[in-house]
Amino acid sequence: MRLTKQTNYAIRILMYCAANDGKLSQIPEIASAYHLSESFLFKILKPIVKHGFVESIRGRNGGIRLARPASEIKLSDIVRVTEDNFSMADCFEAEGSNCPLVDHCGLNSALKEALGAFFIVLDKYTIDDITNNNSRINELLGLHLIEGYEARAN
Amino acid sequence: MRLTKQTNYAIRILMYCAANDGKLSQIPEIASAYHLSESFLFKILKPIVKHGFVESIRGRNGGIRLARPASEIKLSDIVRVTEDNFSMADCFEAEGSNCPLVDHCGLNSALKEALGAFFIVLDKYTIDDITNNNSRINELLGLHLIEGYEARAN
Repeated sequence: MRLTKQTNYAIRILMYCAANDGKLSQIPEIASAYHLSESFLFKILKPIVKHGFVESIRGRNGGIRLARPASEIKLSDIVRVTEDNFSMADCFEAEGSNCPLVDHCGLNSALKEALGAFFIVLDKYTIDDITNNNSRINELLGLHLIEGYEARAN
Repeated sequence: MRLTKQTNYAIRILMYCAANDGKLSQIPEIASAYHLSESFLFKILKPIVKHGFVESIRGRNGGIRLARPASEIKLSDIVRVTEDNFSMADCFEAEGSNCPLVDHCGLNSALKEALGAFFIVLDKYTIDDITNNNSRINELLGLHLIEGYEARAN
């Protein structure tokens, strides 16, 4: 049981932007911080730009930044957008299931309840919660090394 | 986000055995009820026999049955045995992760809390709960059609 890489890195991109505190973040910097390729990063960006979590500013001094406050982006919002589906088992998709129990299954309803409990926890946490309670995050992400960071931070 | 087929069918095999109420179930009958190949069923059986959920009786009149009461087998027990791992993200495996936040990550701890909530729900339900609250389960699994079922049931 695992979240997709898309979800995992989408959240990390949002954490990077949150740590960068409203300033524009450059794709090569984010890619370097997380040891990712820029092309993979662009792929991850698509759904989070499309769904209004991040805005992309074009041009020589362009970059990306959060499109709304980090305290208003719940982890559950992102997971819902980036995960392909939440079919815990193939019997969640009634049409594709060969199981004779599909319409009368106690397993199906127990798994739905468990998934609901999983989301209730992710509803509680925002990008701000998981980023800015970490006093070392700027250092860990290398933000303190980026040219102009001090100037921009002051 | 999805459970493996191994987990899904392991639970369904246990449900079949529970519905068959202590009598020996034959592999071809279970395979037929769930539209599975017998070889796939044998693969699924291995961990649930090994971990003492099911016992296998050899011989011409052999078959499988629950090795302990259905009311004492929690869904969480099975999922823990049949899922490969519970690394919600690659950063759960610190050694394999390139993420600079790995030891200081709020995402990691939020996901662990969410996974814990998922398991708390699966701890509540036993194989008995999800099987025997279904008055039609024997009919749906075709158990009422199996030769000698009525005789064995009386």
